[in-house]
Amino acid sequence: MSELSRTSGVPIASIKYYQREQLLPPGELSSPTQASYDSSHVERIALVRALLEIGKLSVTTAREVVAAIDDTSLPLTWTFGVAQRAISTKGLEPAHPDDEGTAELAAGLTAAGLAVHDDNPGIPIAVSVLGSMRRLGHEELVAVLPEYIRAAQIVADADLASVAKRAGRTGMAETVVVGTVLGDPLFAALRRIAQEAASRSVFPVPDPDGVEAGHRLFPPAPRD
Amino acid sequence: MSELSRTSGVPIASIKYYQREQLLPPGELSSPTQASYDSSHVERIALVRALLEIGKLSVTTAREVVAAIDDTSLPLTWTFGVAQRAISTKGLEPAHPDDEGTAELAAGLTAAGLAVHDDNPGIPIAVSVLGSMRRLGHEELVAVLPEYIRAAQIVADADLASVAKRAGRTGMAETVVVGTVLGDPLFAALRRIAQEAASRSVFPVPDPDGVEAGHRLFPPAPRD
Repeated sequence: MSELSRTSGVPIASIKYYQREQLLPPGELSSPTQASYDSSHVERIALVRALLEIGKLSVTTAREVVAAIDDTSLPLTWTFGVAQRAISTKGLEPAHPDDEGTAELAAGLTAAGLAVHDDNPGIPIAVSVLGSMRRLGHEELVAVLPEYIRAAQIVADADLASVAKRAGRTGMAETVVVGTVLGDPLFAALRRIAQEAASRSVFPVPDPDGVEAGHRLFPPAPRD
Repeated sequence: MSELSRTSGVPIASIKYYQREQLLPPGELSSPTQASYDSSHVERIALVRALLEIGKLSVTTAREVVAAIDDTSLPLTWTFGVAQRAISTKGLEPAHPDDEGTAELAAGLTAAGLAVHDDNPGIPIAVSVLGSMRRLGHEELVAVLPEYIRAAQIVADADLASVAKRAGRTGMAETVVVGTVLGDPLFAALRRIAQEAASRSVFPVPDPDGVEAGHRLFPPAPRD
């Protein structure tokens, strides 16, 4: 077990905790005081850490995700759905929930040829945000929906391509969890970067050497 | 003032507070006890609410944004930059900051022909997320960057188009604030919806009438 701890970079106490909570299968006993572990244990530890630390799942929910991965009678899509639904969407809901966006979302998805299970965790959030935009008097924001759906499809295809690069259900599921959680802030950050660039082309700055002087660019221009 | 309160839907106490904090200019005095307000006051109240309630800005920061809007010597792009930088990016940073993604982000932006001010709030977040992906051993996630940038450009163009639909600096700035804040959860929600659809095409479900039975679709199929 101390070797497993070294290889995985996880303290022995955590490994014992994972085993006690049925998140990690026991090693094969090679003597009464020694168990042997293989690469499947190292992989599983990485997944459990991702579920608990990146996905912020409770131990109970993490156990359900792990069980869905181990049940090879379930198709992979189903397993990924369990992982995706388990990942907290806390912090994504707007402060004032509002259901008035259901018709808009349905129309947008139909136009894009998309249909998903009605328990997809994105549905209530999208409905609520669209409702808030309308309630706040911002119809012009509701109108971005088709372009947002097109961009979401590009991102989702890239997400799935990165999952398909991994071998095995455990590795794939880990990529689903880590990618889903870290992909949100990555996209939000890139959106702010792209907004600044788009803003400059829609509303050109008349005096680039005046107001904007003294600011450096990222990435820095090559100095050749 | 009671008429302004009715028109804007904001209590008189809040309007007085906005004026005390220099977020809202005083009305024109028509008699010692009566001030008259016009549509610019109603617009400004909507903006201040958006800054404080949707953007979660402090009163001090909201005052800076309002001052940038009122200073018509500043180009619009600059004003939007002030609003965008003021909007909290709290909750977007990953739990373990990591600067190892700087080279990746610079390479991705250069390939897309993008360059922004080095104080763009998206830069440290994107750098940190990319560093975390690498530290966690997920090179396959770092590889999504070009597609994410392409999708962010589509979203940013839609964002700017919705800003350009509004008339006047105040209305435009309000759309920048509300759109930037509500656009993040809208996109994250649509990403989860698009992921489910993409997942089904990459990893087809072998038995659609078995495991998946009993689940309804959204949007519901038309019945006829």
